[in-house]
Amino acid sequence: MNTIKVGLIGVTGYTGMELTRLLACHPRMRLTLASSRSEAGKRLGDLYPFLEKLPGADVIISQPDARATAAACDLAFLAVPHKAAMEMAADLLEAGVKVVDLSADFRIHDPDVYEAWYSVPHTRSHLLAEAVYGLPELNAAATAGARLVANPGCYPSSVILGLRAALAHRLINPQGIIIDSKSGATGAGRKAAVPTLFCEVQDSFRAYNIGGKHRHTPEIEQELSLLAGTPVTVSFNPHLLPVNRGILSTIYATLANPATTLDEVHAAYMETWKDSPWVRVLPKGRLPETRYVRGTMFCDIGLAVDSRTGRLIVVSAIDNLCRGASGQALANANLMCGLPVDTGLTLAPAMP
Amino acid sequence: MNTIKVGLIGVTGYTGMELTRLLACHPRMRLTLASSRSEAGKRLGDLYPFLEKLPGADVIISQPDARATAAACDLAFLAVPHKAAMEMAADLLEAGVKVVDLSADFRIHDPDVYEAWYSVPHTRSHLLAEAVYGLPELNAAATAGARLVANPGCYPSSVILGLRAALAHRLINPQGIIIDSKSGATGAGRKAAVPTLFCEVQDSFRAYNIGGKHRHTPEIEQELSLLAGTPVTVSFNPHLLPVNRGILSTIYATLANPATTLDEVHAAYMETWKDSPWVRVLPKGRLPETRYVRGTMFCDIGLAVDSRTGRLIVVSAIDNLCRGASGQALANANLMCGLPVDTGLTLAPAMP
Amino acid sequence: MNTIKVGLIGVTGYTGMELTRLLACHPRMRLTLASSRSEAGKRLGDLYPFLEKLPGADVIISQPDARATAAACDLAFLAVPHKAAMEMAADLLEAGVKVVDLSADFRIHDPDVYEAWYSVPHTRSHLLAEAVYGLPELNAAATAGARLVANPGCYPSSVILGLRAALAHRLINPQGIIIDSKSGATGAGRKAAVPTLFCEVQDSFRAYNIGGKHRHTPEIEQELSLLAGTPVTVSFNPHLLPVNRGILSTIYATLANPATTLDEVHAAYMETWKDSPWVRVLPKGRLPETRYVRGTMFCDIGLAVDSRTGRLIVVSAIDNLCRGASGQALANANLMCGLPVDTGLTLAPAMP
Amino acid sequence: MNTIKVGLIGVTGYTGMELTRLLACHPRMRLTLASSRSEAGKRLGDLYPFLEKLPGADVIISQPDARATAAACDLAFLAVPHKAAMEMAADLLEAGVKVVDLSADFRIHDPDVYEAWYSVPHTRSHLLAEAVYGLPELNAAATAGARLVANPGCYPSSVILGLRAALAHRLINPQGIIIDSKSGATGAGRKAAVPTLFCEVQDSFRAYNIGGKHRHTPEIEQELSLLAGTPVTVSFNPHLLPVNRGILSTIYATLANPATTLDEVHAAYMETWKDSPWVRVLPKGRLPETRYVRGTMFCDIGLAVDSRTGRLIVVSAIDNLCRGASGQALANANLMCGLPVDTGLTLAPAMP
Repeated sequence: MNTIKVGLIGVTGYTGMELTRLLACHPRMRLTLASSRSEAGKRLGDLYPFLEKLPGADVIISQPDARATAAACDLAFLAVPHKAAMEMAADLLEAGVKVVDLSADFRIHDPDVYEAWYSVPHTRSHLLAEAVYGLPELNAAATAGARLVANPGCYPSSVILGLRAALAHRLINPQGIIIDSKSGATGAGRKAAVPTLFCEVQDSFRAYNIGGKHRHTPEIEQELSLLAGTPVTVSFNPHLLPVNRGILSTIYATLANPATTLDEVHAAYMETWKDSPWVRVLPKGRLPETRYVRGTMFCDIGLAVDSRTGRLIVVSAIDNLCRGASGQALANANLMCGLPVDTGLTLAPAMP
Repeated sequence: MNTIKVGLIGVTGYTGMELTRLLACHPRMRLTLASSRSEAGKRLGDLYPFLEKLPGADVIISQPDARATAAACDLAFLAVPHKAAMEMAADLLEAGVKVVDLSADFRIHDPDVYEAWYSVPHTRSHLLAEAVYGLPELNAAATAGARLVANPGCYPSSVILGLRAALAHRLINPQGIIIDSKSGATGAGRKAAVPTLFCEVQDSFRAYNIGGKHRHTPEIEQELSLLAGTPVTVSFNPHLLPVNRGILSTIYATLANPATTLDEVHAAYMETWKDSPWVRVLPKGRLPETRYVRGTMFCDIGLAVDSRTGRLIVVSAIDNLCRGASGQALANANLMCGLPVDTGLTLAPAMP
Repeated sequence: MNTIKVGLIGVTGYTGMELTRLLACHPRMRLTLASSRSEAGKRLGDLYPFLEKLPGADVIISQPDARATAAACDLAFLAVPHKAAMEMAADLLEAGVKVVDLSADFRIHDPDVYEAWYSVPHTRSHLLAEAVYGLPELNAAATAGARLVANPGCYPSSVILGLRAALAHRLINPQGIIIDSKSGATGAGRKAAVPTLFCEVQDSFRAYNIGGKHRHTPEIEQELSLLAGTPVTVSFNPHLLPVNRGILSTIYATLANPATTLDEVHAAYMETWKDSPWVRVLPKGRLPETRYVRGTMFCDIGLAVDSRTGRLIVVSAIDNLCRGASGQALANANLMCGLPVDTGLTLAPAMP
Repeated sequence: MNTIKVGLIGVTGYTGMELTRLLACHPRMRLTLASSRSEAGKRLGDLYPFLEKLPGADVIISQPDARATAAACDLAFLAVPHKAAMEMAADLLEAGVKVVDLSADFRIHDPDVYEAWYSVPHTRSHLLAEAVYGLPELNAAATAGARLVANPGCYPSSVILGLRAALAHRLINPQGIIIDSKSGATGAGRKAAVPTLFCEVQDSFRAYNIGGKHRHTPEIEQELSLLAGTPVTVSFNPHLLPVNRGILSTIYATLANPATTLDEVHAAYMETWKDSPWVRVLPKGRLPETRYVRGTMFCDIGLAVDSRTGRLIVVSAIDNLCRGASGQALANANLMCGLPVDTGLTLAPAMP
C-alpha cells in the first residue's frame, strides 16, 4: 500500500483548514505540500496550532507553483478563489497532477452561464468538457476516471441530495421549487471583514442575496435539470446562522399528485438511498439538526407532506465544510486514486 | 398623572420575565402584584437578580387570585399557559380587572378551530366576541375600548406585519403563501427540558412542526384572511435558532402581476407604513437582521422581487419576546389605559 | 429644560455605537454631531440600521473638526483610538467644548507611565492635571466641575468597584492581588481582523496578554494605590469570552486577618455601597452573571471567603460597553452638565 | 486481532454520549452492550440519531445488569452518577468484567475525605486500594495491570497536566496555588434543569462553587500532593462558559526562585513532555484556546512568567468530554486491554 502524496493549494481559508484536519487522519494519503501566497515560509503547525503533533504539522508552506506541486504530489486540492483556480488547475493538469478544484470554476458546464453569474471570463473553458461534477452519489464512476473534478458547492450539495429521490421517483413538479437555506458562518469565508466579526453574527440571524442573486443558483438549476430531465428554475434564498458549521435547507415543492402520502414519499426516499453510506433518510416524523452531521459526510433528510397545501417539504442537513466542501473533495480524491470512496471519511459527529 | 397599577399573573416564563423588565422602565405603570403557583412567597428581586434596585424588585410573589388582583390592579397581564389563561381571564374580568392575555386562548375567533388545534375545549367561549386581537397597527381603536385583549402570537406578528402592505395593495396572490420562520430559543419556553438545554441548541439549527403542524397556523390564516378579504391557507414552517431572541420570517408569495417591480412593491410598503413608529421598511437592497430589533417593538421589513420565478419575497424581523409578546402586551395595555401606544416602548436595540 | 447638544467623535467602533444607542433614549441630551474619517457623508441611520426611527438617525456624519464641534455641541465624546484622542481633546477644549474621552490618554496621571505602557509620547501632558478619572462612585464632585474627563477602562471599572469596599475597610492585604478577568468580544474592538471573526471566537475561549502585559494594568494599579493609600502591584490577566458584552472579574486577595468571616466582609460591602444606585452587592452565597447586568450601569458583586487558604474572592460583573465605557461616559456627561448622574441611565437588563 | 467487546453503563449523559462517538471509530473495540434505566428497550440509533449508519447504532439499550454485562463484554465503562457507580463497579468486578469508572467514586484514596466532600458513605471502600487513578501520563503501567480504573475528573485533568512539570522541576512553591478554571456547559451535565437551558447560558458567563466548595478540590489536592511530595492545599474556582466543550484553567503559582525566567520554565516543560503524544507545550508567547483541542486528547499548555509579581502563570486547555472524561476512559481501556494507549484516539480537532 503506497502512500498517496497530495498537495493543498490555498491553506488560509476554512476549506483549506478543513482539508488539513481530514488529511491528518487519512490512512492512505499524506499532505506533502501546502501553498499560500500570504503564508509561504511558515510551518503549517505554526500557522495552525491545532495541527501540532499530527501529520502535516511539519510541512513548510510554499509559494504556489505548478511544477513544484507536480514534483511532490500525485493529486492537488485547489482551495483558492474562483478565477485563480481555473488558471492553476490548467497548469497543474499540464504538469501531470490530478486536480480537485473546490472553487466554482469548473462546476458550470456552460461558460456563458458561468460568466453571467461570476462576472469574469472563463479563460480555461476547454477543460469544462472533461471536468466531472464531483457529487459522489451521482458521479462516482466518472470521477474515478477523471483528471479534473469540480467539487460541488455547499448549498447545492444539500439541495441536490435532498431532491434527488423526489425527482427520480417523479413525486414532485420540478417547477416552482423554493429553497430556503441556512448556513453556518464558515460559509462566509475567513477574510477579515466587519460583517463577519463575532459581535456582528453572534445572537443574530440574517438573510442575504435572496431573490435569485446567489451564485449557487445556476449550479443548483444545472444539476436539478439533469435529474429532472427538463430545465428547472428554482428560487434559492440563503441565510446566515450564528453557528460555525452546518447547512440546513428547507425545500418546498409541489406534489405531482396531491394525494401522495408521507408513507409513499418516505418509501421512495428509502429506496433511492438504501445503499448509501452517507445519506440518512430519517424515520417519519423526525427532522434533521445540523449538529447530527457536524464534521462528517452525512446528509440527513427529513420529510413532511403538507396535505393542506399539496406540498412536499424536504429538510436536508449537511456540514458545509466537510460534506459541502473538503470532505467531499477528499471523497473525490479517494475515487480518483482508486481508493474506496469513504477511506478516511467514516467520521462520527462531535456531539455536542 | 396617576400611576396605573398592573398585575402579572405568571412570572416564571420568559414572557413574564420580559414584562418585569419593561415595566421596570415604564413611566406611568407600576407592577403592584405578581403571581405564580410555584414561586409564591418569594421576593421578585430574589427570583430575578437582574431586577434588583429597579422598580418591581420588592414585590412579593403571591398565589394567583382574581379577587386579590382586582383589589391591587387596574389591569392584569396573563402570562400563563393556554387553558389556564381562559379561566383566569374570565375570573379577572368578572372581578373588574382589564386583561391582556398573552396565551392563545382568545386569539382564534372560532372555538371549533381553537379546539381542533389546541386539543382542549374552550370553556369561556362567550368572551371570544369581545376579545380584541391586539396587533396595535391593525386594531388600536378597538383595543382602546376593550376589557379583554388577545395578545398575538410571536410568529403571527412577524407574518401579519410582513404581508399587510402586499395584501392591502393586492400585490400578491393570497393563495400559495409559504412562510419559513426562524425563532430564537426563548420562543421554546423556560421549562426544564433536555431538548432546550444549552448543549442541545448551541452551534446547531433545526426545523420543527413543519408541514402545517404548528398551532400558529390558524392564527396566521385567520388574520391574513381578514386582510385579504378571502379565506387564505398558508404553509407555515418554523425553525429553532441558537439565539436568545428574535424571529426572522422569510415569506414567499406569488406576484399577482409577474411584471411588478421592486420599486412598485417598495413604494406600496412605504405608503402603508409611513406613519408607523415601529414598522421600518428597509431601503431597497437591504435585508433585516434580528439584532437590529433586539429588545424593541420594531418590525423590520426587507423586500425582494424574484423576477425569474414571479415571486415577492418578504423578510420580516421582530424580537419575539418584546414585539412578539410582552412589549406588544404593554402597547395594548397602554391603549386600554388611555396612554399613547408607545409609552415606555421607545426602545433602542442593544447592539451588539 | 434646555436640550443639551452633544457630539460624538468616532462612530464606527462599539463604544461609539453604544453611545448612539444610549443617546437615542436620553431625555435631556441630543446627538447633534457625529464624526468619522471613514464614514463622513453618510446618514447615521444608514450606517446603523438599528437606529432608524430613533433620535440621531438623521445626523449626517461629518469629518472630525474641533471648531465645527464647538459650534454644534456643548460636550463631545471622544471614541477614537488613543493618541488621536489626546490631540482632539486639546483642540476641543480650546474651542470651548467639554470633553469625555473614552480612550486611555488621560487616565494615567504620570506621563512616563503612560509612555511606557502605550509606546507613544504624551503630547498633551499639560492637560493631565485637570483631567478627572471619571468613575462616578469615586469622583462625582470633581467630575461635575471638570472640562475634561478621562473615562475609565472597562477592566479597571470592574476591578476598582469590586475591591473598593475591601480596601476601604482594610479587609485585605493590598499586595499580592490576582485578577482573572474575562471579557466579551466587543472589548476586542470592531476592526476587521481574522482573530475576532465569528468562527474564530464562537464555541471557544482563550487567554491573552497574561503575565502583566495588558495596558489596563497601570490604570488598575494607580487607582487601587489611591484607594489603599500605598503603592499596589497587581497581577492582571484577561481572557476573551464568546459573548458580545460583559466582563466578569474574579479577584483573589489575601485576607488581612485570616479569621475574617464572610458575614463581616458582606456587611462591609453593604455598608460601602448602601446608597449606590448601580452597585449591587449580592446576598451571601450568590454570584454574579454577566447577563444580569447586560446593557446597564450595574456592577454586581459576589463574595466568597476561602477559609482553607485565607483568601477573599470577589467576583464582579459589569457590561463592558455600557458601564465599562459608553454608559459611564454618559454618566460623566450628566454630571458635567449638571444633571443627575443617572439621567437616561436607569436601564433594565435585557433578559435573556 | 480479536475485537474487544465493551459495555457502556449509562448512556444518557454527555460522557456516555461521547463514548458512543469514540467507540464508533475505534478500530479494535466494539460496543456490544449499552445500559440505561430510563431508556432501556430503545435502539441506540433511535436515541442518538447522530449515530445512525455508524457502529453501535443497532445496539438495543438494556437495563443495567452486572451478569449480563459480564456475559457480553470484556470491559465496561461506568457513566453513571457517583454512589451508583461504586455499587455497580463492585458487582461488575465480581462478575469478572474490567471496569473504567467515570464517576468520582474511586478517585479519592481516603474514604473519609470522599465522604466529607460527597456526603455519602463509601460502601465499597475495600476496592479503593486497587483502583488506579487513570491519568495515562502518570499511571500507564499501573493502569495496564488494573481491574478497576478511576477515571480522573475533568478539571483535575487540566490542572494536574498543567502543573506536573513545574512541580517535578521544583519551579514553584507548592503552597498558595490558585486555579481559576472555566468549563463548557457539557460539564454541567445533561439533566433537564432551568439553569442550564440555552437561554440561561448563552451570551452570559458566571462563577459557581468558588471559595473551596467544588468537589474536584480534594482530587486536585491529592494528586498535586503526590507530585509535590508534600501536602498541598489549593484554591480552586470554577466558572461556566457558554461553549459546549472545553476547559481552560489559568493557574497562578509563586515561583520558588523569583528570578526564574520564562526560558527556564519553558525548557523544563519541554523536557517533561517531550515524548508525550498528547501534551503540547506551546511556543513561548503563545496561549491555548479551547477550540484547538476540541474533540481530542490534547492538553495544550501556555506559560507566562510575571516577573513583576514573581509568579508563574500556567494556562492549560483540554476538551472536558474527551480528554477530561470519555477519551481518557478509552485510553485507560486501551491500556487495560493491552493496546497502545492512543488506539482510536489520534483525533484531529474540528476547526472551527
